[in-house]
Amino acid sequence: MALVVQKFGGSSVADAASIRRVAHRIVETRQAGNDVVVVVSAMGDTTDELLDLAASVSAEPPARELDILLTAGERISMALLAIAIDALGVPAQSYTGQQAGVLTDTVHGKASIVGVAPRRIVHALERGAVAIVAGFQGVSEEQDVTTLGRGGSDTTAVALAAALGADVCEIYTDVDGLFTADPRIVPTARRITSITTEETLEMAAHGAKILHLRAVEYARRYGVPIHVRSSFSTKEGTWITDDNDHEPQEDTMEAPIISGVAHDRSQGKITVVGVPDVPGAAARIFETVARAGANIDMIVQNVSSEATGLTDISFTLPEADGAATITALRAAEDDLRFTDLRYDDQIGKLSLVGAGMRSHPGVSARLFGALSEAGINIEMISTSEIRLSVVTRIEDLDAAVRAVHTAFDLDSAEAEAVVYGGSGR
Amino acid sequence: MALVVQKFGGSSVADAASIRRVAHRIVETRQAGNDVVVVVSAMGDTTDELLDLAASVSAEPPARELDILLTAGERISMALLAIAIDALGVPAQSYTGQQAGVLTDTVHGKASIVGVAPRRIVHALERGAVAIVAGFQGVSEEQDVTTLGRGGSDTTAVALAAALGADVCEIYTDVDGLFTADPRIVPTARRITSITTEETLEMAAHGAKILHLRAVEYARRYGVPIHVRSSFSTKEGTWITDDNDHEPQEDTMEAPIISGVAHDRSQGKITVVGVPDVPGAAARIFETVARAGANIDMIVQNVSSEATGLTDISFTLPEADGAATITALRAAEDDLRFTDLRYDDQIGKLSLVGAGMRSHPGVSARLFGALSEAGINIEMISTSEIRLSVVTRIEDLDAAVRAVHTAFDLDSAEAEAVVYGGSGR
Repeated sequence: MALVVQKFGGSSVADAASIRRVAHRIVETRQAGNDVVVVVSAMGDTTDELLDLAASVSAEPPARELDILLTAGERISMALLAIAIDALGVPAQSYTGQQAGVLTDTVHGKASIVGVAPRRIVHALERGAVAIVAGFQGVSEEQDVTTLGRGGSDTTAVALAAALGADVCEIYTDVDGLFTADPRIVPTARRITSITTEETLEMAAHGAKILHLRAVEYARRYGVPIHVRSSFSTKEGTWITDDNDHEPQEDTMEAPIISGVAHDRSQGKITVVGVPDVPGAAARIFETVARAGANIDMIVQNVSSEATGLTDISFTLPEADGAATITALRAAEDDLRFTDLRYDDQIGKLSLVGAGMRSHPGVSARLFGALSEAGINIEMISTSEIRLSVVTRIEDLDAAVRAVHTAFDLDSAEAEAVVYGGSGR
Repeated sequence: MALVVQKFGGSSVADAASIRRVAHRIVETRQAGNDVVVVVSAMGDTTDELLDLAASVSAEPPARELDILLTAGERISMALLAIAIDALGVPAQSYTGQQAGVLTDTVHGKASIVGVAPRRIVHALERGAVAIVAGFQGVSEEQDVTTLGRGGSDTTAVALAAALGADVCEIYTDVDGLFTADPRIVPTARRITSITTEETLEMAAHGAKILHLRAVEYARRYGVPIHVRSSFSTKEGTWITDDNDHEPQEDTMEAPIISGVAHDRSQGKITVVGVPDVPGAAARIFETVARAGANIDMIVQNVSSEATGLTDISFTLPEADGAATITALRAAEDDLRFTDLRYDDQIGKLSLVGAGMRSHPGVSARLFGALSEAGINIEMISTSEIRLSVVTRIEDLDAAVRAVHTAFDLDSAEAEAVVYGGSGR
């Protein structure tokens, strides 16, 4: 008998039929002898519909009220799911974030969990009931309801699993788990059997639409094993864990060096041209960028020209931050004394991730070789201990991902998955 | 500067345009220098839609979960209303029943308010904000959300007004107040300027679709003046109060004896034929009826026949209770020893209500005279201190209401209202 936390996203509970299907799945887990806590998102497009309603009465809805409005979504889905489970003869009770003891700070719309006190959930389990908990929401120390932002339901599930000492946090999605690359680009991408939290974080931070970063960070900190699996099948999915128990069954000597290839089309590149190559020049540029609120990723500084004493500095950042950053740099032009500013949103980023890189030299040579053979030019490079990222032209990105996937022996004999989906909010 | 509690029903906040209109109305009250607390129901048909969803996943949804589901409705309307008021430049914050301190017993679906501790509402008013409170809901001592049943939002408003010591509880509806009769039957029905809680309770208990009984009882007990008025005009509506301050401006010597004429088509009549006219026979019949759960209203026992020593007993009850009561009586036939049972759902009930009856003799004579002149037969009669009710054939009821309305000089010179509506849930 284990304690299992199961999280179902909005697409899994989009209508009454889906809710009944999920209820059956939960009841099976319960009847197999497990204690079950379920975290559920709002039904289908409910959240967007509520946002539309808010927009129709105000151009700038206050964050506190918007949180109250949005949390109505999980209130509906959690009650319906409890009702559907009860109809199958298994007792079930639903709990809001507040009732489940999900305590957050007061940052409405993007709150962080500061603690979980799941007293009522424990009591529900002791009574033999399935506990259904609203994802995405908590209560602040001011007794106001808060929402956790995108990916919030994943974080609720992992935080609850940690507080309850659950044996596993199952994240249900519409595919069989995580894949070595996006199967829409690489039809031969393989399901990953097991991956560490560190690798998952690198994959997610560099474009793979897996779980929300915060949920994985929480799992890493509290040692919660996550099992990402399909709500449409009972197949094993992908274990995200730093615990060897969930290593692949095969000889671990054969564990792959590389876990997967992530890609990202949402970045842009700014080049500050003709910057005086003197101490402090780069610092002043990045202070300006930071004040504009941009999260920069890769930075390249050219060798300066001996003739002019000027250099170029390029960096990548989310396209969404591009306009504000350009405006901030222009405003500081007199201070920064550059000769030109260029913005390029036609870049793609490929990231190779794998804990095995640490002990296997030659990974970068193999990567560069593969891209070179495919005739793809590399514009920027950055690395971490377990990741190697390169920037290419956006139109070369798909070919680059396929070439690298093949070069690191990640291809399976046949296509396994059709869609590579996210896990909802 | 007064403290005003305003209640808006579901039809007043049915869509974004209605919500913006109500927001303007609230802001006008606030800008006139009043502290404002608003109680709001769920938007339009939301509650019925949520009930349909529940029915689509279970034939018998558990009451606790159904309450959680339904309270999502006010959560949406209260947040949207706060957002709309904020957009007009007036600070507004919304509060669930729990946050507003509405404490109830644990009878899910039909909870009673046991206390109101509106600490957060007081703080909101001190900060100069308009407080929006979800109607229809509270929190039980077990920290579960509860709903108050039909008319619950009216009760929330009056209970909050009592706890806050509000100067008035304004109940907004789609007509200008209460009328001396249903204007759909009596086009010359007049708006009632002022009416006591006792009269209102008699009117409501005998078919007038005014406020929910519980809300009026609450107002009576705590001395809360209620002002029923239209959300479409700024005209004075009807004051429900036992306080002379709100008496009509005219010479009170001219105050009408009769407040209004209520009617009810939802009753049926059971006649138990051939009951032995011995002590305890009636008691045994009404014990049986009570065990069947029926709320009986009027009772008539015929003079017994000297030849047979048998009598007939007739009583009225809600049609909804008819079948169960007949079944219970048939089951007890051996004990009760009646010769026949008859059920008649083709009856109508007319009730004349007015505190002035106490001091004015001759009311019944005038009533019977008016009905006799109109050629309408009276089947049963019952009275209270301030009410006189008669049962007629259902097809005679409208004519009876018109005849009585005229006989007691209640007609106005012209038609004032078009629709006689309830106040939502």
